[in-house]
Amino acid sequence: MSFGPKPVPAVTTSPLPASQKTHQAGEIYPGIRVPMREISVHPTAGEPPVIVYDASGPYTDPNADISIECGLPRVRETWVASRGDTEAYQGRTVKPEDNGFAAGDRLTPEYPKLFPPRRAIGGKAITQMAYARAGIITPEMEFVAIRENLGRQAAAEKLERDGESFGADIPDFITPEFVRDEIARGRAIIPANINHPEAEPMIIGRNFLVKINANIGNSAVTSSMAEEVEKMVWAIRWGADTVMDLSTGRNIHNIRDWIIRNSPVPIGTVPLYQALEKVNGIAEDLSWEVYRDALIEQAEQGVDYFTVHAGVRLHYVPLTASRVTGIVSRGGSIMAKWCLHHHKESFLYEHFEEICDIARAYDVSFSLGDGLRPGSIADANDAAQFAELETLGELTQIAWAKDCQVMIEGPGHVPMHKIKANMDKQLETCGEAPFYTLGPLTTDIAPGYDHITSAIGAAQIGWYGTAMLCYVTPKEHLGLPDRDDVKTGVITYKIAAHAADLAKGHPAAKIRDDALSRARFEFRWEDQFNLSLDPDTARSFHDQTLPKEAHKVAHFCSMCGPKFCSMRISHDIRTEAQKEGMEAMAAKYRAGGDLYMPADPVE
Amino acid sequence: MSFGPKPVPAVTTSPLPASQKTHQAGEIYPGIRVPMREISVHPTAGEPPVIVYDASGPYTDPNADISIECGLPRVRETWVASRGDTEAYQGRTVKPEDNGFAAGDRLTPEYPKLFPPRRAIGGKAITQMAYARAGIITPEMEFVAIRENLGRQAAAEKLERDGESFGADIPDFITPEFVRDEIARGRAIIPANINHPEAEPMIIGRNFLVKINANIGNSAVTSSMAEEVEKMVWAIRWGADTVMDLSTGRNIHNIRDWIIRNSPVPIGTVPLYQALEKVNGIAEDLSWEVYRDALIEQAEQGVDYFTVHAGVRLHYVPLTASRVTGIVSRGGSIMAKWCLHHHKESFLYEHFEEICDIARAYDVSFSLGDGLRPGSIADANDAAQFAELETLGELTQIAWAKDCQVMIEGPGHVPMHKIKANMDKQLETCGEAPFYTLGPLTTDIAPGYDHITSAIGAAQIGWYGTAMLCYVTPKEHLGLPDRDDVKTGVITYKIAAHAADLAKGHPAAKIRDDALSRARFEFRWEDQFNLSLDPDTARSFHDQTLPKEAHKVAHFCSMCGPKFCSMRISHDIRTEAQKEGMEAMAAKYRAGGDLYMPADPVE
Repeated sequence: MSFGPKPVPAVTTSPLPASQKTHQAGEIYPGIRVPMREISVHPTAGEPPVIVYDASGPYTDPNADISIECGLPRVRETWVASRGDTEAYQGRTVKPEDNGFAAGDRLTPEYPKLFPPRRAIGGKAITQMAYARAGIITPEMEFVAIRENLGRQAAAEKLERDGESFGADIPDFITPEFVRDEIARGRAIIPANINHPEAEPMIIGRNFLVKINANIGNSAVTSSMAEEVEKMVWAIRWGADTVMDLSTGRNIHNIRDWIIRNSPVPIGTVPLYQALEKVNGIAEDLSWEVYRDALIEQAEQGVDYFTVHAGVRLHYVPLTASRVTGIVSRGGSIMAKWCLHHHKESFLYEHFEEICDIARAYDVSFSLGDGLRPGSIADANDAAQFAELETLGELTQIAWAKDCQVMIEGPGHVPMHKIKANMDKQLETCGEAPFYTLGPLTTDIAPGYDHITSAIGAAQIGWYGTAMLCYVTPKEHLGLPDRDDVKTGVITYKIAAHAADLAKGHPAAKIRDDALSRARFEFRWEDQFNLSLDPDTARSFHDQTLPKEAHKVAHFCSMCGPKFCSMRISHDIRTEAQKEGMEAMAAKYRAGGDLYMPADPVE
Repeated sequence: MSFGPKPVPAVTTSPLPASQKTHQAGEIYPGIRVPMREISVHPTAGEPPVIVYDASGPYTDPNADISIECGLPRVRETWVASRGDTEAYQGRTVKPEDNGFAAGDRLTPEYPKLFPPRRAIGGKAITQMAYARAGIITPEMEFVAIRENLGRQAAAEKLERDGESFGADIPDFITPEFVRDEIARGRAIIPANINHPEAEPMIIGRNFLVKINANIGNSAVTSSMAEEVEKMVWAIRWGADTVMDLSTGRNIHNIRDWIIRNSPVPIGTVPLYQALEKVNGIAEDLSWEVYRDALIEQAEQGVDYFTVHAGVRLHYVPLTASRVTGIVSRGGSIMAKWCLHHHKESFLYEHFEEICDIARAYDVSFSLGDGLRPGSIADANDAAQFAELETLGELTQIAWAKDCQVMIEGPGHVPMHKIKANMDKQLETCGEAPFYTLGPLTTDIAPGYDHITSAIGAAQIGWYGTAMLCYVTPKEHLGLPDRDDVKTGVITYKIAAHAADLAKGHPAAKIRDDALSRARFEFRWEDQFNLSLDPDTARSFHDQTLPKEAHKVAHFCSMCGPKFCSMRISHDIRTEAQKEGMEAMAAKYRAGGDLYMPADPVE
């Protein structure tokens, strides 16, 4: 278990408690194996296992052979090759500047396996959007259709549609054809670079489950490859649907290789960060050529989506001068600095069609960056922010004309009453391309707790229609997240995303809530832990007050103690009701002349 | 520093960083001293201190002489006495059952000082509502008016009114007359038992700052007096506006004395819990006489508000039988059990007028309990919940007819799309009496993180109009909160309350956000920490990555590192803009034929 002079990093494996990874085959493509997690409950419940979405990849599969230096199985390789529209070729040679000129002991070892990259033959678009528009249902599309339906088929008879979707239109059952249609319309994307065949396809769109992204990445100041790979594995264990590698220091090429080869989720990057490293951090020295080189480098490695800050145009820069917090996006400020220095239009904006030509040859999706997002409550929804959004709408049309998949990044810091305007304006301006927001943070006054200030905003904007929520950790504004922060950020955002799914009226979202609540009501403590987003923490909190194993079956908890317990009293009521029949009981209780009629429940 | 055989508990004292407690005198009542906290910023900022609301009492005042066995100064004693409508009398004698028959070593020592209780002369109403309706502005009213205006007068010229208040009507400036009018209308309350003269008056109402409550309390299973007193002091240090003592085990009379004598914030209780202790935990053995005894006992001690579950009526009980989680309120389930056993209407409902007669003699406010609140997403907004709310509306009218102050408790577990209906229905049914909600939790699937699932709902319902938010800690559903959990719960709810104030367009809420964001933009790290809700955590998170003192003045942070920093680039932009003038810069940037006009900012 060692490679070269440095030890191979250990990553977290093993299933979550009471959980079993299962796979469902396709109908159009019988060879695909769509992962799901089944959480079993105690036999006394008399209930089937609860099936939940599983982003964790093979790491939670006890049958998988995990070896970081070998990487994950390249399952999509044959899918891509069989389409016959791509070719393997001799990729770009790694240059010293790709790793920020790190050398010797300071150089992270190269990934031990090299795979020749593939690209489209003859500049053709080989994107999921191109196939969708051509009427083709790909294996990726069937994969995500099955994945999104988790538990829905089995529970079909008891489906309740109860929610306010603000115009989203989630069908009772997701078909591969529905997926194809949504992708063709640009309303959803499957970020899936052909050079990242290890990834399990997932979909981002307003009519699907709300997704979350976790950011990792080393910086000039701290952290290493081993930590970053483990952070990725750790983030997906708890439910991150995609991971962005935002590394900015040395070694970012090599670290990225280690991450991608071991990642079952799409990996996003900001190629501008690496371009800047290549010119020693001097923004003025950036050029289209340097940036283009970073795009090719990362497309060949298998990055699934690029954040491109092409909306930061020269004449928007002065709009930020009177802001309270100026430009807070790193990418945005780099481009502003470049525009300012050269007094030229952004090279990203000017070369956007060429950027699309690269992206469509590998099927790299775009995350059009909001370089002018507000960094404070005071700057929310201002002229700079919305001017850039207009440009992102314009760029969306250019990308779509090239069959490129697009999502749009959103703010930032926004007080609650200004959140909905962001969603409405994004839908209108960007033709319903998926929205991908950071938070938003609903107040500036709680550094150290910005996972919470932002979860409040994230749940709301997810409800209004944001397709993917970028997590914020407790370290936001203060430092780099460590492993614990990553977990806290992911769980917090799973909460926000799930609260949004519930409120949108997603047809299957409530199944897990109901199963956990039944477990709670029936004092099935183990089930309550196992069905939760974080069984380890739930169990440990319970044990801090009532540590004994016997208490795991106790019909009381530490809040009330054994003497009286509201849940136990409710059981008595239910027992009595069952004995004499609910109707009879109600009639008896209404007797005595009191004919009060309870109000109708409000939906 | 010791009392009797047991050591006197130590509580946390000392000011928060860079903070100074100041006091403002009244104009009508020059003797009142309204506490505020001034947070000073670095001289380079050229800014005045930021004034924030201060619930922490004398504990953060370095000039205060804190001694737990002496209690806090009884500042309101003369206010009460000078009204001439109350009398001191020989109070009820403490009985063994008041402390759950604890004896010997297991008995918490009595509070060392005894103060004879006061009550109204001749059964008169001596409530803030009675005075308000009589056109009298009390010292309590002027006190809260000044308290609510924090910083508003100084900042008056730059007041921005920007928000969506959903019908709330917060004036630019709070006058004592406005306070009087809101209390007279029942739209706000000042919970201030005449026997708790140590309390600093505060107001709960939709047209004031959103408040938060922290629950503490021992249980049959765990915890002690020393812990509970420190939890109270700790909770208010971080911003709890009221504290509920939900003790259910032995010693609750004596522990409550220690808490009240040392609490500068209103203390709420659920008297039913103690009544149940008096009958050895057998709900069926409860009676009006036992309950009445607990009310007198607690009114004499100085409890400021009582949760009374008088809305759980006999014929509502069957409505809960088919719920997923039945009745989850302890008070609600005790009453349901009693009604069920005796097949009688609730004695709380039947004796509600007599309860009011007790409350108005001491000015104990009511928190009309939602004993049938939903305990799961599945049960939200159901017939049982809303039937009880109708009854709470009916009881509100009875209480108001007796000049009693009332607020209404609300759920619970509610998915986002069903939250607003709760607020709307409460306003309509209960005549705009203040709403006091627990969360609501927006999903059931995250035990261990229910401070977050509920903060999402709390921020929203606070925005819609809830006047006070009852905190939820990470231990909810799992165990009793310890000191760390209390802090996490309080900070989380301060975030929710502040996010709500911002969204409602509270005229002074944004001042602190803006000050902190300016500090952030100008790399005033110490100011950023000091202006935050939790300076200790913010500082420690920063130091985990960049521990050196020099980094506290560094013009970069650990996220980007020293090479490039978005904030620094923004400073360059601003400097350039200032050099040539913003207008000239904008004109120059628009030159070259590109006449793109940025969209108007959306408010």
